Amino acid sequence: MAGEPLYERLAEHYRRVIASGTLVPGDRMPSVRVLMHRHQVSLSTALQVFRRLEDAGWLQAKPRSGYFVRRRTTPALPSVDEPDNPSVPMEAQFVGLHESISKVIAQAQRFPEALNLAGATAAASLYPTARLQALTIKILRHQPTLLTEAGGETAGAVLRQAIAKRALSAGMTLSPDEVIATTGGVEAVNLALRAVTQAGDTVAIESPAFFGLLQIIESLGLRALEISTSPTTGMSLEALEMALLAYGNIKAVVVVPHLQNPLGSVMPNERKAGLVRLCARHKVAVIEDEPYRELLDDAGQNKPLKAWDRDGGVIHCASLNKVLAPGLRLGWMSSGRWHARVKMLKFAQSRNNESLSQLVAAEFIGSGAYDRHLFRLRERLRTQREATANAIARYFPSGTRLSVPVGGVVLWVELPAGTDSGRLFEEALTQGIRIAPGTIFSNSQRFASFIRLSCPQPFDQTLDDALQRLGRLASDIG
Amino acid sequence: MAGEPLYERLAEHYRRVIASGTLVPGDRMPSVRVLMHRHQVSLSTALQVFRRLEDAGWLQAKPRSGYFVRRRTTPALPSVDEPDNPSVPMEAQFVGLHESISKVIAQAQRFPEALNLAGATAAASLYPTARLQALTIKILRHQPTLLTEAGGETAGAVLRQAIAKRALSAGMTLSPDEVIATTGGVEAVNLALRAVTQAGDTVAIESPAFFGLLQIIESLGLRALEISTSPTTGMSLEALEMALLAYGNIKAVVVVPHLQNPLGSVMPNERKAGLVRLCARHKVAVIEDEPYRELLDDAGQNKPLKAWDRDGGVIHCASLNKVLAPGLRLGWMSSGRWHARVKMLKFAQSRNNESLSQLVAAEFIGSGAYDRHLFRLRERLRTQREATANAIARYFPSGTRLSVPVGGVVLWVELPAGTDSGRLFEEALTQGIRIAPGTIFSNSQRFASFIRLSCPQPFDQTLDDALQRLGRLASDIG
Repeated sequence: MAGEPLYERLAEHYRRVIASGTLVPGDRMPSVRVLMHRHQVSLSTALQVFRRLEDAGWLQAKPRSGYFVRRRTTPALPSVDEPDNPSVPMEAQFVGLHESISKVIAQAQRFPEALNLAGATAAASLYPTARLQALTIKILRHQPTLLTEAGGETAGAVLRQAIAKRALSAGMTLSPDEVIATTGGVEAVNLALRAVTQAGDTVAIESPAFFGLLQIIESLGLRALEISTSPTTGMSLEALEMALLAYGNIKAVVVVPHLQNPLGSVMPNERKAGLVRLCARHKVAVIEDEPYRELLDDAGQNKPLKAWDRDGGVIHCASLNKVLAPGLRLGWMSSGRWHARVKMLKFAQSRNNESLSQLVAAEFIGSGAYDRHLFRLRERLRTQREATANAIARYFPSGTRLSVPVGGVVLWVELPAGTDSGRLFEEALTQGIRIAPGTIFSNSQRFASFIRLSCPQPFDQTLDDALQRLGRLASDIG
Repeated sequence: MAGEPLYERLAEHYRRVIASGTLVPGDRMPSVRVLMHRHQVSLSTALQVFRRLEDAGWLQAKPRSGYFVRRRTTPALPSVDEPDNPSVPMEAQFVGLHESISKVIAQAQRFPEALNLAGATAAASLYPTARLQALTIKILRHQPTLLTEAGGETAGAVLRQAIAKRALSAGMTLSPDEVIATTGGVEAVNLALRAVTQAGDTVAIESPAFFGLLQIIESLGLRALEISTSPTTGMSLEALEMALLAYGNIKAVVVVPHLQNPLGSVMPNERKAGLVRLCARHKVAVIEDEPYRELLDDAGQNKPLKAWDRDGGVIHCASLNKVLAPGLRLGWMSSGRWHARVKMLKFAQSRNNESLSQLVAAEFIGSGAYDRHLFRLRERLRTQREATANAIARYFPSGTRLSVPVGGVVLWVELPAGTDSGRLFEEALTQGIRIAPGTIFSNSQRFASFIRLSCPQPFDQTLDDALQRLGRLASDIG
């Protein structure tokens, strides 16, 4: 904490004051003037403290009245259970999941009209559609040959520069040359795994994990070893260490440190530092998948694992898909000591990205509009999450558990023991609701009574009705 | 030939009449009326005959005077040698080429101002830049959420439909569901190889081959077995058969049947049929890479290998990059019996393509504008090839050999024996000219005295001067 700017330390102080109940929702915060006087700080520092706390959802500005502590609506549901005490995980298994996942996806696609609560992306209305449209047209008017000129190196360089600059605020000091733009975050994770593994190797992953990761692992002929993961603080370092000691063929650990999908967990900074140290000691590559970090209220506080990387052992994979534009397939990676190999693999696999979308993204993330967009996006997602969580608390059978994450669009819901989420998925589809059954997030049956529910669009009566129907179905099945 | 339309058979008849010298350049063709009478055909058939011959560059229309036999300027250079009699190729080798290829590319990129005669793509001015720009803006105005909506399934379906329709004219009957859109042709070839091989397997390829293919093969941990390939008729079936008998671990044959890069060869239809039969007998997958076929004057006559595929053993990979828009990374594939596996691999590797460019491409290739564009593109490339070939004949040292291909943008030039193309590449760079040395097209040193020269833009004094300098350098080095 010592190296942090003054305003961050003051913001943290007030965060604790609120969390401890000294100031409660509805209380007026001390004024800017009081803060300046009390802590002997400048006007600009005091304003930054307020802005920080507002961004993080702790305060709410009321016109002409100042800042007030915000009511944090939490659902009246117990949290999802922490995993059992760590133990050596089951013997590494081939994933073998692709077919069952595809079956679930194909089944869902047979009901194209269903209300989609199975995705991990917010609705288009939450993204800066009009601005991106105008920017795309502007750039294309100035440089029509972007469509008909081979190469893409120039546009790539512009995007890498913008990404490296932005990464500074996340605690990553990268030169633009270290950045490799990819066809979405999915390609980045693919390339990372191809760089550090060979078919037959084992990869340690979170449990539960994003089903897309399980598919990637299977498609590369790798084995997945599922490590216990807390719904609040992420992968268990104890379980990981036991696995590293027990198995000699683990070549990489893949983690989503922030807003893990589906759990929504966020690894505390000490745990991130510990993970990087542990893997460095065991000479195992760390692949961090970061599609969601900038959806966190306090993204600046939550540095990626890469910020703790001392010997190039962390491959940082990120994506603009969830934070900027779900219609663009733009991701990027910084590959530490595997940079040359990843660059070769990317070139051999799909060459440079297209120029137009790279220039659009570079201009947008380099402008103030990006932070303003993120601020609005987080606010709206918070409102949507809370409304959805409240509806679940109202309508789902007793015994349902839920941890509401501090960002993002998905909720990981534990239904009463024994509820068959596969059956719920099927029944819900026939009633026009698409959800993601817990079974596709693991190679085990450990999450058979979980579902992942998303809240992609503003909460309304239709959603309320749908969640009511879903809750009734869950009761009937359970 | 029996199944071909009447006008094709008549066009073929006159093609022979001209090739045999019965009609010589400058001669006036019989009139439309004469043709109708002589062959008892309709006006529309007769007109199609003329159009066909004009498209293929045999005739030239003169306003108000009718059609004349076109002067086909051929350079005063002997053809590139046919390869030696086929023999069992050298033991399969790991490619190990990526590093040297990267070195060549990196070296070239240090001279960004150099005149680029090392690419395989025509200049932006030869593509429908303004039309594609207008189309992109039009589509984006109507559907701005293409940028911010997740998915891409709808746009993908529209593109697959347009591709399947277009494939009919190439003799391929595909359902849209068999088509998988990819991030350029490079990704298609990657996915094809991943579908049919495992690390350590051997892949038979043409010799020389596109260096990008060598890089793909190396990046996947495969071995490349180079098969003798004729500069006119493509891969030697005899050499391939010997290799298939000699080696048990060949899992795939990769060929570019039309306008092979760098040779420019075109496989005759009988040879294509023979290749498909041979590989089916040996149960070896055929991967055909088709970035250039539509650059052929008579593309309709030159059907892809896929048109002879009876048991799903051919994976057809194509790209819109060279024929429609070098700035778009759009390719597609039809994967025969590996369709499900390729679909899985594509999804796990990079998800769906972006929507916007897919819709732009679909609308363009579905319109008459695409054929008009191709017609102009071929004409201009022919002129550029001939002018470049003539300049090579004028300026290069005696002993230089060259086969001018019937389409595309690259010329494969054999310098006098002993000329070091690597040195020529380096010296040329310092004189502001970028060429591709023959060494990067093979794992052997067989093509060390070859260079690949491209003619991407309209021939002018600058190019003439550059080729003169290059010729002088080649003489000095040789």
